[in-house]
Amino acid sequence: MNTFGRNFRITSFGESHGPAVGVVIDGCPAGMALSENDIQPMLDRRRPGNSPQSSSRQEGDRIEILSGLMNGMTTGMPIALVVRNEQQRSVDYDELREKFRPGHADFTYQEKYGIRDHRGGGRSSGRETLSRVAAGAVAMKCLAARGITITGSVCEVHGKTSPSEIENEILAAKAAGDSVGGIVLVTAMGCPAGLGDPVFGKLDALIAGAMMGIGAVKGVEIGNGFEAARKFGSENNDPMTKDGFGSNRAGGILGGISSGQDIVVRIAVKPTPSIAKIQKTRDIHGNETEISVGGRHDPCIVPRIVPVAEAMLALVLMDCLLEQRKYR
Amino acid sequence: MNTFGRNFRITSFGESHGPAVGVVIDGCPAGMALSENDIQPMLDRRRPGNSPQSSSRQEGDRIEILSGLMNGMTTGMPIALVVRNEQQRSVDYDELREKFRPGHADFTYQEKYGIRDHRGGGRSSGRETLSRVAAGAVAMKCLAARGITITGSVCEVHGKTSPSEIENEILAAKAAGDSVGGIVLVTAMGCPAGLGDPVFGKLDALIAGAMMGIGAVKGVEIGNGFEAARKFGSENNDPMTKDGFGSNRAGGILGGISSGQDIVVRIAVKPTPSIAKIQKTRDIHGNETEISVGGRHDPCIVPRIVPVAEAMLALVLMDCLLEQRKYR
Amino acid sequence: MNTFGRNFRITSFGESHGPAVGVVIDGCPAGMALSENDIQPMLDRRRPGNSPQSSSRQEGDRIEILSGLMNGMTTGMPIALVVRNEQQRSVDYDELREKFRPGHADFTYQEKYGIRDHRGGGRSSGRETLSRVAAGAVAMKCLAARGITITGSVCEVHGKTSPSEIENEILAAKAAGDSVGGIVLVTAMGCPAGLGDPVFGKLDALIAGAMMGIGAVKGVEIGNGFEAARKFGSENNDPMTKDGFGSNRAGGILGGISSGQDIVVRIAVKPTPSIAKIQKTRDIHGNETEISVGGRHDPCIVPRIVPVAEAMLALVLMDCLLEQRKYR
Amino acid sequence: MNTFGRNFRITSFGESHGPAVGVVIDGCPAGMALSENDIQPMLDRRRPGNSPQSSSRQEGDRIEILSGLMNGMTTGMPIALVVRNEQQRSVDYDELREKFRPGHADFTYQEKYGIRDHRGGGRSSGRETLSRVAAGAVAMKCLAARGITITGSVCEVHGKTSPSEIENEILAAKAAGDSVGGIVLVTAMGCPAGLGDPVFGKLDALIAGAMMGIGAVKGVEIGNGFEAARKFGSENNDPMTKDGFGSNRAGGILGGISSGQDIVVRIAVKPTPSIAKIQKTRDIHGNETEISVGGRHDPCIVPRIVPVAEAMLALVLMDCLLEQRKYR
Repeated sequence: MNTFGRNFRITSFGESHGPAVGVVIDGCPAGMALSENDIQPMLDRRRPGNSPQSSSRQEGDRIEILSGLMNGMTTGMPIALVVRNEQQRSVDYDELREKFRPGHADFTYQEKYGIRDHRGGGRSSGRETLSRVAAGAVAMKCLAARGITITGSVCEVHGKTSPSEIENEILAAKAAGDSVGGIVLVTAMGCPAGLGDPVFGKLDALIAGAMMGIGAVKGVEIGNGFEAARKFGSENNDPMTKDGFGSNRAGGILGGISSGQDIVVRIAVKPTPSIAKIQKTRDIHGNETEISVGGRHDPCIVPRIVPVAEAMLALVLMDCLLEQRKYR
Repeated sequence: MNTFGRNFRITSFGESHGPAVGVVIDGCPAGMALSENDIQPMLDRRRPGNSPQSSSRQEGDRIEILSGLMNGMTTGMPIALVVRNEQQRSVDYDELREKFRPGHADFTYQEKYGIRDHRGGGRSSGRETLSRVAAGAVAMKCLAARGITITGSVCEVHGKTSPSEIENEILAAKAAGDSVGGIVLVTAMGCPAGLGDPVFGKLDALIAGAMMGIGAVKGVEIGNGFEAARKFGSENNDPMTKDGFGSNRAGGILGGISSGQDIVVRIAVKPTPSIAKIQKTRDIHGNETEISVGGRHDPCIVPRIVPVAEAMLALVLMDCLLEQRKYR
Repeated sequence: MNTFGRNFRITSFGESHGPAVGVVIDGCPAGMALSENDIQPMLDRRRPGNSPQSSSRQEGDRIEILSGLMNGMTTGMPIALVVRNEQQRSVDYDELREKFRPGHADFTYQEKYGIRDHRGGGRSSGRETLSRVAAGAVAMKCLAARGITITGSVCEVHGKTSPSEIENEILAAKAAGDSVGGIVLVTAMGCPAGLGDPVFGKLDALIAGAMMGIGAVKGVEIGNGFEAARKFGSENNDPMTKDGFGSNRAGGILGGISSGQDIVVRIAVKPTPSIAKIQKTRDIHGNETEISVGGRHDPCIVPRIVPVAEAMLALVLMDCLLEQRKYR
Repeated sequence: MNTFGRNFRITSFGESHGPAVGVVIDGCPAGMALSENDIQPMLDRRRPGNSPQSSSRQEGDRIEILSGLMNGMTTGMPIALVVRNEQQRSVDYDELREKFRPGHADFTYQEKYGIRDHRGGGRSSGRETLSRVAAGAVAMKCLAARGITITGSVCEVHGKTSPSEIENEILAAKAAGDSVGGIVLVTAMGCPAGLGDPVFGKLDALIAGAMMGIGAVKGVEIGNGFEAARKFGSENNDPMTKDGFGSNRAGGILGGISSGQDIVVRIAVKPTPSIAKIQKTRDIHGNETEISVGGRHDPCIVPRIVPVAEAMLALVLMDCLLEQRKYR
């Protein structure tokens, strides 16, 4: 299940400690201008090392388009994108061969496959999101040509909402060898009404699955989300007017189908599980032990989740747009 | 997209105002005893009219198994389940032919298909969940044979958590011609480690998609959900011990794969959008108007969502159990 | 895998000796008039007992539409079709509980599931094709509205091609307690260019899979088929002209994509494996034994395969037509 | 639709005139030793230029594994394989920008996408089969570990069956600026009973779809194929014995499920449509014209289809083997 989507389908591959990571996009419409320059800026946004709060790793990720273009235009054929891995310091990960990191997929991978790639988390590594962001950049270009724009932002870190407080929280966590979580808001503007299928292919169901499928995400809300559970129906319904709707508590989706209003999604991101602080854990032989996860880990991955969440929303919307062409 | 699942696949059909609703289950293992008596009690739980708080409709829904059995045992062939519709008072819905109900799918269906079934909401009706619950009952029987049990409960209505307060909130809303929302908790016990795929087929992604695909659900949390966004990593990680885990903030899923702990899901249910109180809306000709949604509507559908949420979790887990057989 | 198609999807269910057989169609466009009268005539064509050559069973199969219509029009919602089974003489099949019939799926079902429905072959029964024909009738109505017509015919039985010779061959086989096979030709006229995907979704690949998925079919040809293997390229290519093509050896498909010419398919149907003549076989305990398959079996099922083959071609084309809407 | 398979899924990408061709394999079991050396020999077999009869192009195709391995073992994660394109003489193809080649996908691609890659046929190029062969080599290694071997051979060219006659036919066609077709036989030995699903996922249906999805294939037979249409049932059924079956006219598949006998498939390959002989055709402006397709084209691609057909059979069987794990 490394493929996502029905119509605008992406297939992701690659580990942080193998030769490359990449993605194949199948179903991109023909006739759109596309080059590496459309994708590289999105990748650079998810790269660590651009601010004092984040990890100091330098990932000089250069995207290469391997297929699907003729004279700089898409042909409708699959578009393969690849980024070569450069830094591979497996030595950092030797302790991890023996010990399960709390909050990580180490234990569950071992249970599932009977084997696991302990070097940087393998496919559960954050580096896998590079494939999503690259494919999302292509989806966003397709959407932009149809008048749809997607924007994401950090709206809360460790309970704080102002930029300066957020910076302080992150720096304090870093100094303590700890980490903090937060909330990301993603919005799609200009989306036509009619996207999404009733029943199991509801637009909000697809979005929730896409967002919860990002590592570290533990909650998803559409529109007013959990707040709706505390409202009266008369407070929560969005009245209709001649010009559309009088409010947007529904977050742009009614009965699983887009209403033409902004699509509004909020996701909860847990604190990075890799922390220097000593934690209790178990080794692969069943013995209790302690671990301090070394290496250069982000004390807060919330800002780096933003382009990933944007990408996932773009992929869902592009998929639904193509699906909708079948109906009318 | 009326099919759900990859291995234990269900295909749902039927409208409240057509001859029947039903579901076809494809992929149920051979050799399990099955009869209508395994399914009917789950259907009765989602039926309205069992308490003073709920709607007074009497839906005498009798399930019939049309295929997939020989001598009372499953054969591995598709199991078709059907419930005939009895009460069909389309006359209640005549006003709805012209007016869009706020908070409903009326407008979005019209935009999507250029046609809509105004009688009882068509496929967006709560009656569609009958198919899910019936299929979920079969999945639960399969799971029970593997030591997995699923239980759901109402844990909050309109901000209140005690049974008597909840009853008061619902009766007050009913008296006011209004409605209230709430929160449902669903838990799976006995689930083995190793279920779910990394990347796009994460167990939590599948659960989130399944839950958000239930009508009226606006938020999903796994484990401590949005609370995780306000924690330090050192507070949020579940330490490992010789015997398993020291806590279960993750809700039984790490890196998208089940850990063997209880799987814990919370969902936010919006207040019923059908209310007697007068609301502003628009008719199909674009004119502003008012609407009081008549008929016998539940002032709070949260209790009726419980068996639906249990069913969806059962379907996801049964699907992943079959998927997992491919790996080891 | 009782579901066929990506966009116009059908899910088939039911055994000859259970309560009913049926099919759910998901993805039928909204706004088409549809009633049982559009489907019943196709079902009657596949029914045995209409000619002296065929089996004398009388299957009074009455189709019922359970969902997907409002005021006699499709709504875009799933259309469930059901036929109740009437005659169920399981007593005919008691010998079959113990013995594997040569040429049948008895042995392979037992190996696959560890259990099998010996009554009439269960899902491997010809009665399963009723679901395909019913769904195919709906697809044909959709196609007809787009100017596409599908016709099938028996073009050879036991090596003979004229109607009177064919009748003689069938009667002679019947008298001898034996059976004969033959070849069916199916053609689609009016199909636009551009259907089918390059690589794995080629139109001819989809057709070949659909046809070989009909029980008793052992070969499929597109256009001149095996004859092409004996030609020079200069003989086999269809020259292009101002008005289209100078010939149609390709059978209407080039590079897996329809060319706008007639789509021409031929399928080889093996002789009915159920024969009265004594055959050597094995019982479920591993002992060698003999069997004479009793009951009223068709000495030649080729004519009854014609509507099934038409239905499968209709389903493939309707699926591709909806798929193609995504491209241009 | 550049993805094939449900459980052992491959996604193919790349054009002959882009930077690379490749494939991503998703679902390969963990714990198998794998290196480029397992794949390269299969690729070399499909390479032209190894005999006097074939094209003189030298494609030094070197496969590279980009992901899915740790210490030379598969991890269960996607395996990406890439071959860089080296020779790219687009100049050969300039005439093709304007003229449709008879027997090729030029016209149908143009109709489908409104754009096409005229350089070497784009995705309809034989070079796309490189991805299939590379993925098939991995599937074959998986199958070999389970005791299943696949072998293919040329059994007929232009109606001739002896090697020396076949060589003469090919050389004569080459000298005449023409081409010839033929028949390929592919067999799987050691395959367990029980593979394939009844109804739409029949093993023979999957094989037929896989084979007809190879460019230039116009017919597929399982077992005795079209010959079955001319037999009596008493001649065509394979009698069962204590030890298995007394013959294998069914080609190893009964009711769509493998019987444990050899799986036998024959496919008809049309003569290469690219010929030097002058043919009538049309240009993209609708004018009638003539074309002599230059470049170094194989006068007979039948031998090069052999590894492709083996690969497709391997992919289908590996897919069904994983599917079957769900059942018992």
